[in-house]
Order: sequence, then structure tokens, then C-alpha cells
Amino acid sequence: MGGDNGPEIVLLGAKMSLLERPNSKYIFHGREDELKPILKKYPELEAVSEIRDCEIVISMDEKPTQALRKGRGKSSMWNALQSVADGEADAAISGGNTGALMAMATFCLRPMEGISRPALAAIWPTLRTEIVVLDVGATVGADAQQLIDFSILGAAMARALFDMKQPTVGLLNVGVEEVKGLDAVKEAAKELSSHTGGGYQYHGFVEGDDIGKGTVDVVVTEGFTGNIALKTAEGTARQVGTYLRTALTQNWVTNWVH
Amino acid sequence: MGGDNGPEIVLLGAKMSLLERPNSKYIFHGREDELKPILKKYPELEAVSEIRDCEIVISMDEKPTQALRKGRGKSSMWNALQSVADGEADAAISGGNTGALMAMATFCLRPMEGISRPALAAIWPTLRTEIVVLDVGATVGADAQQLIDFSILGAAMARALFDMKQPTVGLLNVGVEEVKGLDAVKEAAKELSSHTGGGYQYHGFVEGDDIGKGTVDVVVTEGFTGNIALKTAEGTARQVGTYLRTALTQNWVTNWVH
Repeated sequence: MGGDNGPEIVLLGAKMSLLERPNSKYIFHGREDELKPILKKYPELEAVSEIRDCEIVISMDEKPTQALRKGRGKSSMWNALQSVADGEADAAISGGNTGALMAMATFCLRPMEGISRPALAAIWPTLRTEIVVLDVGATVGADAQQLIDFSILGAAMARALFDMKQPTVGLLNVGVEEVKGLDAVKEAAKELSSHTGGGYQYHGFVEGDDIGKGTVDVVVTEGFTGNIALKTAEGTARQVGTYLRTALTQNWVTNWVH
Repeated sequence: MGGDNGPEIVLLGAKMSLLERPNSKYIFHGREDELKPILKKYPELEAVSEIRDCEIVISMDEKPTQALRKGRGKSSMWNALQSVADGEADAAISGGNTGALMAMATFCLRPMEGISRPALAAIWPTLRTEIVVLDVGATVGADAQQLIDFSILGAAMARALFDMKQPTVGLLNVGVEEVKGLDAVKEAAKELSSHTGGGYQYHGFVEGDDIGKGTVDVVVTEGFTGNIALKTAEGTARQVGTYLRTALTQNWVTNWVH
């Protein structure tokens, strides 16, 4: 039900994902009377989908605590997570309220053992390949241990998504010299440098421009900086796009006039 | 003398700046035997320049403390700052070691009264106009008072550079709601919200993508996040540029083959 554009876009997204992964099956949690007419428009999707009617829907502007009070155990968002907990679904996808989803997932699915806080990960297109960047906004002011946890989480995601054995992990910092950066970052780096276990390889510090270069498979940072980096990159890409459109339009007008 | 490409680029830069501002005059501090032959190549620049010979030069890899020990009162970098302190020059420009320049400027020129730490400011091109973004790396982990100081510094810079009376100042944050973000950011916001004095107007929180939109004239953040935002934006712009070149080259090849 969620997202700024509601179920119309969610179902269109599902239809598109089915083209890429034809063996997918879908369970849509939400108001059946709203979902059914949209699903009718996509017969191929309808054939592999079922709707689970649910009246209670979390809106975009609800605070996580409000959302939990209102929707714990009975909202479309919770029910989607519950179907993962029950083993009915392999993943829950939502275009809705991020904070509410994080809070509900923490209660419904519980973090991995030894991991204290969840993280938001972005799949970031780079010049080399797609990489994982986390945390992009879940844990503002993460400490050293949480940065190490994010390395474990991010590496697990890279292994699962990109079919890698030993993804490389970089810690986002200002400058690549040992001396620079915040205490939490320095402390995490010290710990990660002595990491020898399987699952990932610690690369060292990376800087902001290493993200787009794809220097490492997983970029780890705390949530404040990660969120600003993500939105700044989105903003810059849009900005360059606008320059380009303007330049092309001007050329077109120029050619027309001549 | 400074920068990754040495005095060749610095003098070329001066020559280019003279085209934009024909009434400028230049004092070049550095090794006269290196500078003189380069300056000879630009007669218009030579006519409005003088060279102040100085043997001691700060290299790019020296730590600020090392640089101070070696060059305080006697290096080309210090002498350039000294000519501002003496009122001989209106501004000192260096393409060299940023950390050393910051340290030397702090000792030679001293911060404004009431300002405890300097900041590094970037002139950021946006869809609206150029804006000031600071701090992009001088003070990692700035506290609330330092963020307020940066607002004052950034606004002063916007007034001086862009000829504005009341530049708008935004605090970089995750989400624009009051509740989100780091304690220092929240505290600074509280203080700035009640700001009524002249010189600038507090806009409120801005997000990463507001930088490229040009939502405000001055974006204030602490040095870690600011540095990552700047480098991420540079990286993204380069990345989009590379995509574009690749696409254009491919089209060109395609057209050629057809």
C-alpha cells in the first residue's frame, strides 16, 4: 500500500520484476478492494499472485512508535514481514514509511545474533559494478562496534546479491591516511584490520569519490554521513542531468533557428 | 609552489584569473629561479606581478605540525599569508598542502573574534547559482557552537563573494523534520532558529539533494560529513561524465559502422 505513489506503483514494480525473474511469486498485503482492480491490469502478474486483505495501513508521515502502536501484528506492513518470519515469503518489500518498516522489522524479524542495530543499505551503481553502501540513515552516530556490524551485514548482502565469495569492505573516511577521521571510524578500522575470518576482506579507508569508482564491494559508514552521501549523489546526478537536458534543448533551439 | 602539479599550473591559473579580473596584481612567493622562466611565458601577467624569492617550500605530504616547524615565518606559504597580514595583499591563494595552509593561516592571520576554529568552504555550483558549503574537512566532529560559527563565516563569504545582503543558511541534516539528526545539529538548529541579527537568514534543515538544487545560499555541516558530501558529488559528476562519454563513443562507433 505504501510509498508516495501508493499501490499503483508497487504493483507496476512487481510486474516489471516478474519480467526479470519469471519464476517469482507474490503475496500482496493491503486493501483488497484497492489492490484487485490494479492487479487485474496485469494478467501475467495476477496468475502468480495472491492478495491478503488488510484494512490497517501505515501512512508515510507516521513516527515509528506511532506505527508500531497502530500496526503491530495487524497492518499490511507487519503482515508482509510476518510472512517472511513464517517462511511463506523469502523477502518483504515495501515502498512505504522507512522508519516504520525498520522498527517493525526489528520487532518482527529480529536482527542477526550479535548485531545490535539494523542498517539501511543502498545498492549503488558504480563505474565497475553495483556495490553495497550502508548505513544510509538507520543509525545516526554509529559507534565502532556498529560499524563493524555493518561490515558483516554489508558483506553478507554482497555475497547474497552479487554471488561473491569474499567481498571487499572499505570504511568511509576523510583522507586515506591512518591519522584522519572520527574516533569511531579509527577504532573500527583498527579492529577490522586484524580481521582474518571468512566472509569478507577489509580493504581500508575509502573516500567519498571511491563510492562511484567502485573501489570496494561494500562501503561502510554511520547513518548520518551515509544518508547525506546518498542524497548528495542523487542530487548531483539529477543536476548533471538537468544541465545536459538544458544544453541539448538549447542546441536544438539553436539548430532550429538557424 | 604548491599543488600536485607545482608552479606551472599556479601561474597558468593566475594568467586565467587576470583575463577575468584585469585590474588584479600578483605577488608570487617561491623559488625565483623556478618561477621566473614560467612567468616569462605570460607577458601580460608578468607586467602586473612580482616574485618574492623564498627557498623553503612546504611539500604536499607534510603534516601540519611538521609544516609549521619547518616553515613558520620563512616558507613561501607563510610569506603569502604574511603579505595579507601586512595589508600588502587582499587574499592569499595556494594550491598546496591544505592542512599546512589551515594551520599556518590560523597562526598568521588568526580567526575572527569569537570564532574558535577555521573551516574549509567549497563554492558549489547548483541549478540556481553558486553557493557556499562548509565545513568540507577542517573540523571533524564540530559541536553546536562551531556549526553556528560556520553559519557566520559562510554567510560572510556569501555576502562578500556573491554581493548578497541576507544570504540564507541551511543546516545539513537527514530528513527535514525537527526530530531527526545528531545532537550537535539539533542544538545548533535551536540556537539558529532564534537568530534575528543581520547578516543572514536561517532557513532550517536541508538534505543532501538540496545542495545541488541550491535551496539555500550557505549549507553548514561538520567537516567529516561535508568532506564526504563534496567528494561523493565530485565522484558522481565524474561517473555520469564517464557514462556519457561511453554512450557517445558507442553511438559514434555504431554510426560509423552503419
